[in-house]
Amino acid sequence: MAKTNGKTLQELATMVGGRIVGDGSVLIRSASTLGRAGKEDITFLANAKYEKHLATTAAAAVVVAQEMPANTPLLIAKDPYYAFMQIVVELHGHRTHKKTGISPRASISATAKIGQDCDIHDFAIVADGAVIGSRCVIYPGVFIGPDVTVGDDCIFYPNACIYDNSVIGNRVIIHAGAAVGEDGFGFATHGGMHHKIPQIGIAIIEDDVEIGSCCGIERGTLSDTVIGQGCKIGDLVAIGHGAIIGPYCLLVPQVGIAGSTTIGHHCTLGGQVGVVGHITIGNNVTIGAQSGVINNIPDGQTVVGAPAIDIGRARRAYSLIQYLPDMKQSIRRLERELEDMRSGQEDEQV
Amino acid sequence: MAKTNGKTLQELATMVGGRIVGDGSVLIRSASTLGRAGKEDITFLANAKYEKHLATTAAAAVVVAQEMPANTPLLIAKDPYYAFMQIVVELHGHRTHKKTGISPRASISATAKIGQDCDIHDFAIVADGAVIGSRCVIYPGVFIGPDVTVGDDCIFYPNACIYDNSVIGNRVIIHAGAAVGEDGFGFATHGGMHHKIPQIGIAIIEDDVEIGSCCGIERGTLSDTVIGQGCKIGDLVAIGHGAIIGPYCLLVPQVGIAGSTTIGHHCTLGGQVGVVGHITIGNNVTIGAQSGVINNIPDGQTVVGAPAIDIGRARRAYSLIQYLPDMKQSIRRLERELEDMRSGQEDEQV
Amino acid sequence: MAKTNGKTLQELATMVGGRIVGDGSVLIRSASTLGRAGKEDITFLANAKYEKHLATTAAAAVVVAQEMPANTPLLIAKDPYYAFMQIVVELHGHRTHKKTGISPRASISATAKIGQDCDIHDFAIVADGAVIGSRCVIYPGVFIGPDVTVGDDCIFYPNACIYDNSVIGNRVIIHAGAAVGEDGFGFATHGGMHHKIPQIGIAIIEDDVEIGSCCGIERGTLSDTVIGQGCKIGDLVAIGHGAIIGPYCLLVPQVGIAGSTTIGHHCTLGGQVGVVGHITIGNNVTIGAQSGVINNIPDGQTVVGAPAIDIGRARRAYSLIQYLPDMKQSIRRLERELEDMRSGQEDEQV
Repeated sequence: MAKTNGKTLQELATMVGGRIVGDGSVLIRSASTLGRAGKEDITFLANAKYEKHLATTAAAAVVVAQEMPANTPLLIAKDPYYAFMQIVVELHGHRTHKKTGISPRASISATAKIGQDCDIHDFAIVADGAVIGSRCVIYPGVFIGPDVTVGDDCIFYPNACIYDNSVIGNRVIIHAGAAVGEDGFGFATHGGMHHKIPQIGIAIIEDDVEIGSCCGIERGTLSDTVIGQGCKIGDLVAIGHGAIIGPYCLLVPQVGIAGSTTIGHHCTLGGQVGVVGHITIGNNVTIGAQSGVINNIPDGQTVVGAPAIDIGRARRAYSLIQYLPDMKQSIRRLERELEDMRSGQEDEQV
Repeated sequence: MAKTNGKTLQELATMVGGRIVGDGSVLIRSASTLGRAGKEDITFLANAKYEKHLATTAAAAVVVAQEMPANTPLLIAKDPYYAFMQIVVELHGHRTHKKTGISPRASISATAKIGQDCDIHDFAIVADGAVIGSRCVIYPGVFIGPDVTVGDDCIFYPNACIYDNSVIGNRVIIHAGAAVGEDGFGFATHGGMHHKIPQIGIAIIEDDVEIGSCCGIERGTLSDTVIGQGCKIGDLVAIGHGAIIGPYCLLVPQVGIAGSTTIGHHCTLGGQVGVVGHITIGNNVTIGAQSGVINNIPDGQTVVGAPAIDIGRARRAYSLIQYLPDMKQSIRRLERELEDMRSGQEDEQV
Repeated sequence: MAKTNGKTLQELATMVGGRIVGDGSVLIRSASTLGRAGKEDITFLANAKYEKHLATTAAAAVVVAQEMPANTPLLIAKDPYYAFMQIVVELHGHRTHKKTGISPRASISATAKIGQDCDIHDFAIVADGAVIGSRCVIYPGVFIGPDVTVGDDCIFYPNACIYDNSVIGNRVIIHAGAAVGEDGFGFATHGGMHHKIPQIGIAIIEDDVEIGSCCGIERGTLSDTVIGQGCKIGDLVAIGHGAIIGPYCLLVPQVGIAGSTTIGHHCTLGGQVGVVGHITIGNNVTIGAQSGVINNIPDGQTVVGAPAIDIGRARRAYSLIQYLPDMKQSIRRLERELEDMRSGQEDEQV
């Protein structure tokens, strides 16, 4: 978190369309967390439970949603986290990439087409028939397979691998070691052996998608695998053949989605969630971490658990598992007591 | 799904040993799903619940197991999915690999031995003492470590890494970024520190195995890790040191198997299944997705859940978790009612 | 498990500070498992339940914790597994790495600084401003990003990727395909779109850490991600942005830890464990395989299950899930019986 030249709080407030309570002339040179922010640092309050820290923070300023007691200037913004993000971009910027041009130590097919101002590093591969847009950054060891299409302004980190015929949109980021368009897990079992089915679908990665390190996005068996526009996919996520992920979904690390499942737009899947194949998840669905989804989910629902159920019920239900021994004991005791009472009644009746 | 020159339905039926109901002269140029198949497409019916689609499909023909009402010609085959797989291979073929020979930009040790007609791409590595069979395709960035042995007709996709001394059979496919034979997770903890145990076993990958992207197959600590003949392993699977997987198993993406566990032949492990170390899974065992297996499983059993139990019991048991709050209420109500009744009895007795 | 020249059992006992029961002159040439050890092999007894095998083992000697009946010489050591580890190191040694020097086919920036006696293989990358200590081994396809700092005696296996500005300690081992310091999964959602937050923290990997294949260790958003000294991380582990893992933890394959979580020292996380973000795990905590941790855990506790609870309660509780159908039946039966009794009482009272 190197210090930057900085901006005044007033300049930042103007940029994000916010309002200042306190001294707007304070110089802000970097961004930090609420707990660690010090002199010249700006931070934000995302969660009301940390509100008390505003009385003691050493931060130069805090981005908040509304006026509240604090020992430091406040920048009030409707969406504080979004405003803070804009400020981080303003102060620190996104990663810059060295202008290398096309390295003579890269391996570029004579039949590949490369757009303008691309940087293709040593030991990167662009295979026959691949078409790459403008201003792409292709790090060492990246493999862009035969007849792959890549849009403009993409960044592929080292050793990412894009299999043949995949279609990649604009502004797509693929992190180190991820595989896109590898063969789907498709076999016909016959006579006790598993026979590979040619995977004739492709993988389509739409605009503004980011894919984490060591992900595996399978190509489709017969129809295509699609990662919708603006989806953000964490590290070590596995997407099965023919799955369709709608626009603007968040897939947290280690999620797994089996083949031919369709997910709507603006869904959030927590870490290690598993979704079986051939089901349909609606729009605006939230699935809690580690959940196991085996049935369709309608629009707007929040589910959790394995098997995943509505969160209202799930919170109580799963937290009761620990009381199963007590419940079992209670049942045994009830059975004994009932038996005793019945004996008593029978004695009376005799 | 490019169109091919195509075959008549009759030609395809003859090839797979099937029987036609309807017009055998129809031209089939590609394969597709039941939902998407159109003119010149062949598809298949794998699941009776989709049978109604046969009345409306636009497909040129459908592969089915038995005669049934349809608005399109049927190809009747004993094992429709297997027949369909053969047709996909016939029409579309498996991926073809450019004949590159051995690139001067690959790094081949002078002491390595390479069989006939291999294609070794730019930036691939074959280290000292490695022995590679004939007709292997080794993509860029693949590392074949010292003294590794590889059979014939293998395909290693970009950036796969095979550690020293591993033994790879014939027709093995390893996808992008997978690691085979890396060090097992073996440490002796002493004085609060974890001391690395040399992993002197190796990884043995038998004939016809396919390994997905970003898998980690550890070498053995003292005895070898073995992936049996014909196993198919999905993306992001982790296999622990000294595990032995019998022939013809299916390991779906994100499965994890801990060290020293033995799995029989023809087992199927669903997505994200975890199996603890030092146990024995029999033959023909099926383990449902996300299950956690902590005990031996006898031959032929199907289990599901974490902890995994027989599927017959598991289906009902795990689906009851959501009713735990109701069960708890019922128990409380019973306790109160019993108490009330007992008070009543006592009153009577008084 | 090649045979070595070997040592006598007496020599090995002296080395580990152990005591021999039986013939100390027996020649030991390799190490093996209790089940497979034969002539000239030494093995160990880690678990009392395998004690009976001592009567029938073909091993030349067995390392044990105390004197017991056996048909073979015993090496008695306080910590048998640690002693055995020392013996494996003595007999077989750790993997040796070819002395290659700095390959002219590697890509080394003119502004990088490389220590003495490093081996940097073909197609490895050391970017601008990177500083590497002495005696490091950097395999093909490794990417050491701009301004990365690496200590002495590190080993980076093929295609590992270390992002810009990461700080790597001494004696760190990173296995094939792992990514360190990739962007954290941090986005501000605004207007239905996810906006990337620059990840201005870094990843710090302290001394003596080992990281498995295909791991993803995110850099921090605002504060740094830290993997503490002596931690051992298995394959396919995902660590979120800003997580802090204390010294000497063991993270078994496929563990996932979400962002901003802090874990103490000497913790053990079993395979496929998931830990949510923004919580604190104490020191000496053990978390059973596949557990889902959603709350802070105090020092010294052992938890298991999803949700994770104390192991004493969890063992019984989770094993009762399979009896839920019986419990439900019992409750129904109790309800009916109580109803019957009440009817009886009422009849009496009438």
